[in-house]
Amino acid sequence: MVPRQTSRDLRNESRFEVLRALFELGPSTRQEIARHTRLSTATVATLVTEFLSEGVLRIAALERRTVGRPYERLAIDPDRGRIVGVDVAETYVAATLFDIALTPISHGEVTLDEHENSQAYVVDGIVRAVEAAVGTGAGEADRILGVGVSMPGQVSPGAGVSVFAPNWDWHEVKIEELLAQGLRIPVYVDNPLKAVALSEMWFGVGRVADSMAVVNLGTGVGAGIAIDGALIRGANNNAGEWGHTLLQLDGRQCRCGRRGCVEAYLGVHGIETSLAEIDKDHPALRQPLQRDFIDAVATGLAAGDPVLAELARRTAHYLAAALGDLVTLLDIPYITLTGWTSTALAEWLVPAVRAELPDHVLPGSLPDLTVEVSRVPGNPVALGMAAFALEHFLGRLGLPSPASAPIARRRTRPQS
Amino acid sequence: MVPRQTSRDLRNESRFEVLRALFELGPSTRQEIARHTRLSTATVATLVTEFLSEGVLRIAALERRTVGRPYERLAIDPDRGRIVGVDVAETYVAATLFDIALTPISHGEVTLDEHENSQAYVVDGIVRAVEAAVGTGAGEADRILGVGVSMPGQVSPGAGVSVFAPNWDWHEVKIEELLAQGLRIPVYVDNPLKAVALSEMWFGVGRVADSMAVVNLGTGVGAGIAIDGALIRGANNNAGEWGHTLLQLDGRQCRCGRRGCVEAYLGVHGIETSLAEIDKDHPALRQPLQRDFIDAVATGLAAGDPVLAELARRTAHYLAAALGDLVTLLDIPYITLTGWTSTALAEWLVPAVRAELPDHVLPGSLPDLTVEVSRVPGNPVALGMAAFALEHFLGRLGLPSPASAPIARRRTRPQS
Repeated sequence: MVPRQTSRDLRNESRFEVLRALFELGPSTRQEIARHTRLSTATVATLVTEFLSEGVLRIAALERRTVGRPYERLAIDPDRGRIVGVDVAETYVAATLFDIALTPISHGEVTLDEHENSQAYVVDGIVRAVEAAVGTGAGEADRILGVGVSMPGQVSPGAGVSVFAPNWDWHEVKIEELLAQGLRIPVYVDNPLKAVALSEMWFGVGRVADSMAVVNLGTGVGAGIAIDGALIRGANNNAGEWGHTLLQLDGRQCRCGRRGCVEAYLGVHGIETSLAEIDKDHPALRQPLQRDFIDAVATGLAAGDPVLAELARRTAHYLAAALGDLVTLLDIPYITLTGWTSTALAEWLVPAVRAELPDHVLPGSLPDLTVEVSRVPGNPVALGMAAFALEHFLGRLGLPSPASAPIARRRTRPQS
Repeated sequence: MVPRQTSRDLRNESRFEVLRALFELGPSTRQEIARHTRLSTATVATLVTEFLSEGVLRIAALERRTVGRPYERLAIDPDRGRIVGVDVAETYVAATLFDIALTPISHGEVTLDEHENSQAYVVDGIVRAVEAAVGTGAGEADRILGVGVSMPGQVSPGAGVSVFAPNWDWHEVKIEELLAQGLRIPVYVDNPLKAVALSEMWFGVGRVADSMAVVNLGTGVGAGIAIDGALIRGANNNAGEWGHTLLQLDGRQCRCGRRGCVEAYLGVHGIETSLAEIDKDHPALRQPLQRDFIDAVATGLAAGDPVLAELARRTAHYLAAALGDLVTLLDIPYITLTGWTSTALAEWLVPAVRAELPDHVLPGSLPDLTVEVSRVPGNPVALGMAAFALEHFLGRLGLPSPASAPIARRRTRPQS
């Protein structure tokens, strides 16, 4: 029953390595790609020829030498088409149009009323955000090769294509089908934890490490996990729900129904609850919107508000304890923080978490443990979803380049 | 930086598949092995020839047909040599002598005084347990191909070969070297969570599933984790320390120094603490030895003791919550319980945990979730360590057959 890789899988992985080298290095010669990937020059030459013939790569420059043939510098051809990455949250839809080198071109955003949750309303919001990102430029819409959409809650890409979104009370919604009808473009749906992990693997610490947890702090909290270069999906594509692991048995009520979850302390409502415990009349609690609350906390902290300093202290304590569990269980060396709470409060949370984390981690897992705010640019959910959509487009071209498939899926073909 | 498999890695993995098929099927023809492993018959024939020439396999039977050549049935040759697997705990050393088909032959056990923790004392105890298992039979000692020793605490096999054992206050002890001097045989050291995971992968639910958590309940508690067929080791071989993740922030003092760890509720001392909270004068608490305490609890439960029924209820509540975290974080479909607490109290804990687990797991991770007591026979730590020692012996023969190496380690060679 142990799954097994085949020669074909190796070739597909090598193909991804070539793309990844080009994302990292920019325009490169075949020799540079071979050196970077440690693939043979023959393998690189074959894969490059495939990509050139499908227009995925182009010759970006010719480099002349004093003798011999000039070197060709290869690059992903941005003109090959467009990819859209979409981040659907409970309060907004943010869409980014990318070229296939995953350089962002334009954005579109639509606000969602969190009290309106019909399928038609949300699908319409997604379609409008994509249209806003794509714009009305000549023929732009026709150039889109794929759309990747991150949906909150539990998502089963491929087979089931259903969504269980706790806040929306959706069950088994055929969201890929609905969106494909609305957008008339191939749509791939996944969940945001998988998207932030993939963007970190392609464009963040994945460049220096194979194992990482990408911890998202926002309305909800969760962790995208990669181990030894593979995105951990779990048996039902539901891995990473760190926000619903315990901080406190039988503690605060969580919106998932359980008590004492990490999210009940580190989600925005959890941080609001902590503030109310310290000072229920604090003005920051009067902000009706979650983002405004977090911004008010950041502003107050910068101004030296002692109540908010105590809030930051408690929140850092909860975060250090909850990150400690991730490290203790998986002995994972890199934690990157993402999401708007992370961004807004990094200055106060990160140093405190680094200082306290050793109290929560067994000594054996401490060497080289790194906690930092993610350096992935832009909206990492939209970027990760665009990377998934690109992966799927390449698969449809007959050039599979898997960067995220769990090992078991990559290894299903019998060896011939 | 994403590691990559090479053709040589594929061949090594295929070699392991052949061995695994023989462990599962017993004596088999090349055709049966090919069908079971989905390897080509040519590949199977090549690998079988290698194994035959090194004496790892033998022709166990010839099966005659009415026409054509007879089929050869192949089996692991039990006479090729012996492997010893050793389970070192804080209160005992248990050693099992196996043939290289990993069939147990004989056992030896030595009691350790938990207050005596010098290196010489522990090393001597291990040597005596191995000698007791091997016995004084003619030449048995000379036939031993390798010894696998599980040590409590943090173990870095290979490079560091050091141990940090919290209860023994050992730091950076070169245990492989010390043992190899004492035993004059190649020694491989690892930690018990890796051993129980490997035995489950080879001889337990690994036969039907690629992802599992093997939860060990004894003096300490922890979880061996396999995902998509790979043993999760972590950056410092320290993954699986589920016993030191939080059940209760700032809760009961744990012997690791942190407060509120799972082990402080589910380790034997944790269960004793729970009983003392219900009835500090309960007679079971008068048992001086941990195993006698657990046996007294089992006996009392069987006799209908209402205080112990309340203890079982609370312990099952803690266990369901803590297992829920494992499932929620990793979306892992199989949990097997091992260790002597699991064995002694299964009748009371398992049904209660199964009933409560859905309250602690997101709905998306519930389908097909299975919790059961491990069916791996004998001492799973000793068996797992013997499997590691066999893996290392095959590597020394020039026939690497990796069953446990993390993907990143398996994939370090450049492709040629």
